[in-house]
Amino acid sequence: MPDRSTLTTGALVRQACRSGELTGQTAGLAKGYTQANLLIVPQDYAFEFLLFAQRNPKPCPVLEVVEAGQFRPRRFAPEADLRTDFPKYRVWKNGELVDEPTDIRDLWRNDFVSFLIGCSFTFEAALLDAGLPVRHVDRESNVPMYRTTRPCEPAGRFAGPLVVSMRPMTPLQAIQATTITARFPGVHGAPVHVGDPAAIGIEDISRPHYGDPVEILPGEVPVFWACGVTPQAALLAAKPPIAITHAPGCMFVADRKDAELTMG
Amino acid sequence: MPDRSTLTTGALVRQACRSGELTGQTAGLAKGYTQANLLIVPQDYAFEFLLFAQRNPKPCPVLEVVEAGQFRPRRFAPEADLRTDFPKYRVWKNGELVDEPTDIRDLWRNDFVSFLIGCSFTFEAALLDAGLPVRHVDRESNVPMYRTTRPCEPAGRFAGPLVVSMRPMTPLQAIQATTITARFPGVHGAPVHVGDPAAIGIEDISRPHYGDPVEILPGEVPVFWACGVTPQAALLAAKPPIAITHAPGCMFVADRKDAELTMG
Repeated sequence: MPDRSTLTTGALVRQACRSGELTGQTAGLAKGYTQANLLIVPQDYAFEFLLFAQRNPKPCPVLEVVEAGQFRPRRFAPEADLRTDFPKYRVWKNGELVDEPTDIRDLWRNDFVSFLIGCSFTFEAALLDAGLPVRHVDRESNVPMYRTTRPCEPAGRFAGPLVVSMRPMTPLQAIQATTITARFPGVHGAPVHVGDPAAIGIEDISRPHYGDPVEILPGEVPVFWACGVTPQAALLAAKPPIAITHAPGCMFVADRKDAELTMG
Repeated sequence: MPDRSTLTTGALVRQACRSGELTGQTAGLAKGYTQANLLIVPQDYAFEFLLFAQRNPKPCPVLEVVEAGQFRPRRFAPEADLRTDFPKYRVWKNGELVDEPTDIRDLWRNDFVSFLIGCSFTFEAALLDAGLPVRHVDRESNVPMYRTTRPCEPAGRFAGPLVVSMRPMTPLQAIQATTITARFPGVHGAPVHVGDPAAIGIEDISRPHYGDPVEILPGEVPVFWACGVTPQAALLAAKPPIAITHAPGCMFVADRKDAELTMG
């Protein structure tokens, strides 16, 4: 295991992935550097997935598309190799998880199109910097996530419900968090809902569908953001013969900084 | 010719197009309703064009993609027919203009993918509402447009320079116009440059490459926005065997309102 405190840049994290030293979570590493989700599909699915993202930009903010057969994301990290630079991957066949390798060079195909997708780590850093609470970070647990009854706009074979993440805050903090996250449309942007979970079809806020529950304190309301699990769920529903994603929490760490992702 | 003052909604403008009454400019019609550019390519070019737009969102803000063989834009005007509801079209073969029909039903193919792209009419309305000058509107001329030396991010066969439109303003007006147009990322967003034309490769501001020149008054600076001619130029460079666009100034008028296009 590497000394995590030494992994202070995207390049250092990626080097630790490539050498096989880092095979776990990237949360907290290389503070200030943008982390991203991965989704790889065969070219035949690429237009439909990009269209799904265009129609559902809040849950599916595409940071970069790396075209068929290429594996270097020249906008976010031109020296990186998408086949080796994640701590761990998930390989899906016809929507079923079949493997969790730490390197996908032997699976690589020239018709693979790769999507790097913005992740809430970016806006959580901005919330913490502003002194706002991010409870699951304080508790060192995973963010609670919920399937809603709001359908995404489908595109071809890609369809499914909007999945949201939740962070409890006071109403004033929720307003501040809204203005802060609205500045980051590339990483889910402003919340999609605040308050009554039932209004978006969440039956029991204490039982998230993914991640861990967090306490909502007296005077707090749940604040919901669109979540990157949404495109993953749509991908599995589309059941491509093969697809590759990052393993949960095992993100790509770019050369670019979160601060570059603000709108303008 | 229809009485233009009666064309007060998107539906009425489209009806006038469909009946053959309206075959000219849509500027000033159906105030408050969103107008959009059109670009139709065969499916084989659709992923690359959508990727070009994803990489160049300021010149190429996609409002809606209508999938292969469909011709009803269900998000922006579900009853509309993209084959008849523009005043006039342009048909391009291998990058050459070959026809300017007012109806494209006889050219329609089941592999055509249609893109509706945001247009500066939306943000010009917001500028005028805020009391800011839009000189070419005052002069009833076409907005001046310039090819710059800034390349777009290419995608497959689509590549070319950023094309900009220019509106002269005082520095304070330019600041106000920036805050207003930043709220409309779906229609080119904030300016891409202000001041020295040479900094973006424009040699002679009095000689635009498209549209008409406008006077820059003492105390004013030129303010440059990314322009929808950019994707058209990239399309012609890609030379697809067939492509269809709107004729200049002959836009699609949607059911949705400009006010719905603000970010949030």
